[in-house]
Amino acid sequence: MLNKRVKLAARPMGLPKRSDWAFDEVETPELNDGEVLVKTLYISLDPAMRGWMNEGKSYIRPVEIDEVMRAGTAGKVVASKSDKFSEGQYVTGGWGVQEYGVVLAKDLIPVDPKLAPLPTFLGTLGMPGMTAYFGLLDTGQPKEGETVVVSGGAGAVGSVVGQIAKIKGCRVVGIAGGERKCKYIVEELGFDAAVDYKKGQIRQQLKETCPDGIDVYFDNVGGEILDTVLTKINRKARIVICGAISQYNNTTPVKGPSNYLSLLVNRARMEGIVVFDNAANYMSAAIEMAQWMMQGKLKAKEHIEEGLENFPEVLLKLFSGDKLGKLVLKVADD
Amino acid sequence: MLNKRVKLAARPMGLPKRSDWAFDEVETPELNDGEVLVKTLYISLDPAMRGWMNEGKSYIRPVEIDEVMRAGTAGKVVASKSDKFSEGQYVTGGWGVQEYGVVLAKDLIPVDPKLAPLPTFLGTLGMPGMTAYFGLLDTGQPKEGETVVVSGGAGAVGSVVGQIAKIKGCRVVGIAGGERKCKYIVEELGFDAAVDYKKGQIRQQLKETCPDGIDVYFDNVGGEILDTVLTKINRKARIVICGAISQYNNTTPVKGPSNYLSLLVNRARMEGIVVFDNAANYMSAAIEMAQWMMQGKLKAKEHIEEGLENFPEVLLKLFSGDKLGKLVLKVADD
Repeated sequence: MLNKRVKLAARPMGLPKRSDWAFDEVETPELNDGEVLVKTLYISLDPAMRGWMNEGKSYIRPVEIDEVMRAGTAGKVVASKSDKFSEGQYVTGGWGVQEYGVVLAKDLIPVDPKLAPLPTFLGTLGMPGMTAYFGLLDTGQPKEGETVVVSGGAGAVGSVVGQIAKIKGCRVVGIAGGERKCKYIVEELGFDAAVDYKKGQIRQQLKETCPDGIDVYFDNVGGEILDTVLTKINRKARIVICGAISQYNNTTPVKGPSNYLSLLVNRARMEGIVVFDNAANYMSAAIEMAQWMMQGKLKAKEHIEEGLENFPEVLLKLFSGDKLGKLVLKVADD
Repeated sequence: MLNKRVKLAARPMGLPKRSDWAFDEVETPELNDGEVLVKTLYISLDPAMRGWMNEGKSYIRPVEIDEVMRAGTAGKVVASKSDKFSEGQYVTGGWGVQEYGVVLAKDLIPVDPKLAPLPTFLGTLGMPGMTAYFGLLDTGQPKEGETVVVSGGAGAVGSVVGQIAKIKGCRVVGIAGGERKCKYIVEELGFDAAVDYKKGQIRQQLKETCPDGIDVYFDNVGGEILDTVLTKINRKARIVICGAISQYNNTTPVKGPSNYLSLLVNRARMEGIVVFDNAANYMSAAIEMAQWMMQGKLKAKEHIEEGLENFPEVLLKLFSGDKLGKLVLKVADD
């Protein structure tokens, strides 16, 4: 089978350009015992991918130059040398930005497309959803009646964080960019209020929407927004550091939170999370979240673009904010 | 009784100058029922005092202009209208920078000068010691065999943090300024190693002294040192934010830790502490620490200066680093 692949050609400075990528086409290899050949239907585009392109020690090794770009993927089994999977089955995994993957059976997760559309298994029922679930519940520890603020509130992770916080009885305020996203999280997802960071005066907006201060802040963006939230936290507040999308394409040093001494004044905590640490509990979380979806308490939304060849440009929508919901690239028809 | 007092005359910009203080002399008032007249023998000088001089919301209200400066104090009862205290008893409290205090009995703690010299009750057995004890054990949660790094390692809090961490079986590295302090914490206090920040190359020094990385960092200084430590923390590390003395006299904005995303990569935590939250447990902590002192496992050292009139200049030794051990101002002979 001919397999089109997208490989990292150069380590990007700032926003990744088309010239940072190389396309090629190779024949898929013969399967060994225990391996499965999967046809890629959807590729997950996530902010974390920007970090994987950088050199240096992190929670996961960087993608090497000339290596197929790492990505979460969903697809259909077309051949199998494992008794765990058979042709026609739907699966998710992380075989990267290419049309086909040869994957060890143990690295594939079977999914049931009757439960939810396949792209949802890359979003609300995939890594972003798991990140929201464990980050909010285990690290944020929201209690009924508390105020939870989430940045990137209309995004793949943030939209789930806010909805779970509502399920847990919290007052929820989402920070998002632009009227459309702010309207979406309040009117469609049921957040109590939205802060539109593009309007400026974030501090004043937080004051108005969080009259009782902030108990939990789930941060996807870093930068000035994190710094402003730090001025409004309550005693014993918990700040979950999930990401810092405002800083990922910096060519200058990261902006540290200059109001971090608010942690001292308020005996508050700031803690980083990496979703992979919860792998053993993904399944039970996904089941609980699927139930919430069926009860109408948790809504999933994907923004789907098409065509492997468009990967370099579509990826940039993560950083321009020009999308609503989980960003997914459709690679092939079922 | 004539009472000399030191009052805040102006909110300092940067380092407090002599002109930020006003001295006066007034007659001590008659005692009401339940009140005690205490003669000040020693005044505790602490970095936190710098924060109390600033306007604005914090964990404690600011000292007002024309108010006697707040400070921890140790002294001797000279008159009492409370049946809890009688003339000649030694006490500690927080009656401020003045020769005499009229204090409610409930705000005084009786101390036994046979157990330790009076100034030690302002240091290792006082607030700095309590800060070290609860900050390290409750928030830092050091485990045997882990590496604990403490900045301000020769200071009132840091020297106790390091010694308790040794008692708990940790590898302990202190960060301090200058050869004399570094020698002191290793040779006299038993730390495993010292990093002399005045020598520069802090990152390289940390690499050499912490071959297994850093599990607990107790931060008293903030700024560049905090930022450098963040590059060396281990997975699930705990950073205790106790203070940021490098930033207290800033006339420019506080420098935030630009490497804070190391919290994410390492699933680590940064948490602020305020010692007053543990008031209910001071007594049991002090007893345990007194036992360690008697067993020779915990050493106390005070740097004692003399004269209430020298308060403005002596206070600055906190920030110049020109002292070794807990800074105390002796006000009167017993």
